[in-house]
Amino acid sequence: MSTKNVKSKSPAESQIEMTEMVLPNDANVLGNVLGGRVMHWIDLAAAVAAHKHCNSICVTASIDGMSFINPIKVGQLAHLKSRVVYTGNTSLVTKVEVYSENMDTGERKKTSEAYLTFVNLDKNGKPQKVPSLLLESEEEKSEHEKAQAIKTKYS
Amino acid sequence: MSTKNVKSKSPAESQIEMTEMVLPNDANVLGNVLGGRVMHWIDLAAAVAAHKHCNSICVTASIDGMSFINPIKVGQLAHLKSRVVYTGNTSLVTKVEVYSENMDTGERKKTSEAYLTFVNLDKNGKPQKVPSLLLESEEEKSEHEKAQAIKTKYS
Amino acid sequence: MSTKNVKSKSPAESQIEMTEMVLPNDANVLGNVLGGRVMHWIDLAAAVAAHKHCNSICVTASIDGMSFINPIKVGQLAHLKSRVVYTGNTSLVTKVEVYSENMDTGERKKTSEAYLTFVNLDKNGKPQKVPSLLLESEEEKSEHEKAQAIKTKYS
Amino acid sequence: MSTKNVKSKSPAESQIEMTEMVLPNDANVLGNVLGGRVMHWIDLAAAVAAHKHCNSICVTASIDGMSFINPIKVGQLAHLKSRVVYTGNTSLVTKVEVYSENMDTGERKKTSEAYLTFVNLDKNGKPQKVPSLLLESEEEKSEHEKAQAIKTKYS
Amino acid sequence: MSTKNVKSKSPAESQIEMTEMVLPNDANVLGNVLGGRVMHWIDLAAAVAAHKHCNSICVTASIDGMSFINPIKVGQLAHLKSRVVYTGNTSLVTKVEVYSENMDTGERKKTSEAYLTFVNLDKNGKPQKVPSLLLESEEEKSEHEKAQAIKTKYS
Amino acid sequence: MSTKNVKSKSPAESQIEMTEMVLPNDANVLGNVLGGRVMHWIDLAAAVAAHKHCNSICVTASIDGMSFINPIKVGQLAHLKSRVVYTGNTSLVTKVEVYSENMDTGERKKTSEAYLTFVNLDKNGKPQKVPSLLLESEEEKSEHEKAQAIKTKYS
Repeated sequence: MSTKNVKSKSPAESQIEMTEMVLPNDANVLGNVLGGRVMHWIDLAAAVAAHKHCNSICVTASIDGMSFINPIKVGQLAHLKSRVVYTGNTSLVTKVEVYSENMDTGERKKTSEAYLTFVNLDKNGKPQKVPSLLLESEEEKSEHEKAQAIKTKYS
Repeated sequence: MSTKNVKSKSPAESQIEMTEMVLPNDANVLGNVLGGRVMHWIDLAAAVAAHKHCNSICVTASIDGMSFINPIKVGQLAHLKSRVVYTGNTSLVTKVEVYSENMDTGERKKTSEAYLTFVNLDKNGKPQKVPSLLLESEEEKSEHEKAQAIKTKYS
Repeated sequence: MSTKNVKSKSPAESQIEMTEMVLPNDANVLGNVLGGRVMHWIDLAAAVAAHKHCNSICVTASIDGMSFINPIKVGQLAHLKSRVVYTGNTSLVTKVEVYSENMDTGERKKTSEAYLTFVNLDKNGKPQKVPSLLLESEEEKSEHEKAQAIKTKYS
Repeated sequence: MSTKNVKSKSPAESQIEMTEMVLPNDANVLGNVLGGRVMHWIDLAAAVAAHKHCNSICVTASIDGMSFINPIKVGQLAHLKSRVVYTGNTSLVTKVEVYSENMDTGERKKTSEAYLTFVNLDKNGKPQKVPSLLLESEEEKSEHEKAQAIKTKYS
Repeated sequence: MSTKNVKSKSPAESQIEMTEMVLPNDANVLGNVLGGRVMHWIDLAAAVAAHKHCNSICVTASIDGMSFINPIKVGQLAHLKSRVVYTGNTSLVTKVEVYSENMDTGERKKTSEAYLTFVNLDKNGKPQKVPSLLLESEEEKSEHEKAQAIKTKYS
Repeated sequence: MSTKNVKSKSPAESQIEMTEMVLPNDANVLGNVLGGRVMHWIDLAAAVAAHKHCNSICVTASIDGMSFINPIKVGQLAHLKSRVVYTGNTSLVTKVEVYSENMDTGERKKTSEAYLTFVNLDKNGKPQKVPSLLLESEEEKSEHEKAQAIKTKYS
């Protein structure tokens, strides 16, 4: 079995879920979470999935298609789901989805989505090859295509 | 069917998982996460499980058996698991477990455990009845007994 | 003179410059500024330009083409320039550029660029019309076209 | 005179008092200080007393009997008193008490109490012997017994 | 007994002591506490003494003679002492002194001193009369003269 | 031409402008920015101007004449302007001015002014000579005299 096959990973292996509670100091004067605060959470969630996929540190190269569909209010939860959906040579794309949860009613809403491109670094800070991605489900293949389209638009 | 039965919930219904990345500003001069930072995360994770069980806000009443077994280093992940394990009349106990993850190797270690007692409040800030707990598995019954023992020691 | 003409503004009228110093608690373990920290600054700079163009609060709707070309090190400055480059009916696009400055040598490098779409809100939180944009210089027209292209790709 | 006698210290020698003002970003949606914020302050106050008793760094090992009796409101002061009340071989227990103060009326209320166990570390991060404790007053002896009881419950 | 006599207070009645531990995120790249961080602590300590003297909120009007004599290193303590040393009609001056403590050696050094002028506000945010100051010791009289000189230089 | 002449700089060469948005977690219970927060911004702005003038790190030595004339409200902007106005042998004085901006109306108000003295350090942390200051305009000469007067009062 080749080294490359050993290293290949599925999106599920890098998937990470994070939950944050929106505190008053995360919010603007309207009582909604600051956009920059959500971006920070999205960046962390994406960096973790990238790091888990590569087993080495990854740095943010670009962000596209980051949408803010619904606000998240103080006192609500923000649930983040992040997984690697596309791999290149030394870079990869992670997709992050954010959902709000009202803990009084249990209601959940999708609030954000984003595609983040990371470069994988070795211990000297030089780009290094990333493990390839094993795509199995239809959903995984569809997300892979979307990420590829985003990459192409900007190159 | 009584109102009480309708409201009863299993520990799984309140279970929440949170992941935090230890940043340099969460750490002491040894490069280990600050105890007070982990406590803050544990308190948030516990409060979320309590809130989800009751569908209303809960405030921390006491903390016992909070242990710090292994340090978590800068750059590692802290995974928190929290669920309600005991219910009284207007109070409940949540158990929180914390695990570190080294993203380079995938190694996980248990780093902390804690039992937190919360009081459930209505909209006027007065204590109100909490939904009872449905215990099914042996693990759930065992955790319930430990929480009860902790409650008794301090009363 | 019509109300609309009175309200029309040039990109220069909304332009804002911000300077941030990268402190140790803004950095990752490599001593480079956290991506999420830069995003927070970019979001603030963009929101300020949007607010100044509309004279009322604007909320982030989406982010595209946010690139991280060079790292910014602890102890360096981050200079942000932000201005409105495209207006729609109730939304607008701000472009933000980020430059690092090494204060020992005076060297500056472009480190990031981003296009952020905002929705303008009235006092009740409902979308309201934004002032139109007066484009004069070639650079302003070119930026307007890029922003329009980004808007189209995602609709 | 033995080395041990030279090093023995009274609880008063390690006692430390800290005062914090509760700012809006320390508070939850009810305007009460966050439990996790108070825990952070308690951990710092306890670590300082432990460090002063040993003249070397100490890390938190466990927390017991941490109670939250009354809320502290935004704009009020939190006064923390911390001192070493029990010593083992390489570990010790500090007791922390927290009082709120309303600066408009001067009214003070006890809001929290906690017992924290620390391990004393040498420069290589290995546990080392802690100075013994000189107990003189009845209050000091009583606190020593409570701390001993807590240690026993959990071993 | 006149109202004025009832309200008069000594400097000791407003005196407050605060202790802060310098964490890595309070420090610059040299490992010394940030000047702005110490200023924040000084402002808080001074505001608390002013509030305690007046039993109502006070806002900072000006700062003079704030000196930074010695650096405070990460891991050391900052002890702040603050008391009202001069009163005018609706304003007062608080003196703050800062000392560092090396917990390994117990060594203390004076690191900062400052005179802050506050205006006392009533519930509607309007300036109101401050209680007069009872000066007894020679030190109190000397500090009062220094504060008065500072007030005069700037008026 | 002497080395000294080569190094001489005008106030304009060190001038820096920073813009901050006042977020809810920067404010006190009255909704006004915390004095300590503004001091932190002033210290950063002053340190940047000092660093740019010397092309090496500078540490705060003292602060005088820092006034708080008008409050800045949550949601408003704080604009800081900072430039070197006086140079000594190994120290220099920077003047910082702060203006608030209401983005709904465009109204600006001066809110603070301060004179900060810095010591210039070489790579070993020892004081080193600062470049001299080229004064041309009347305003520059007037600011230089004010700074000199402040220096004299305290020596």
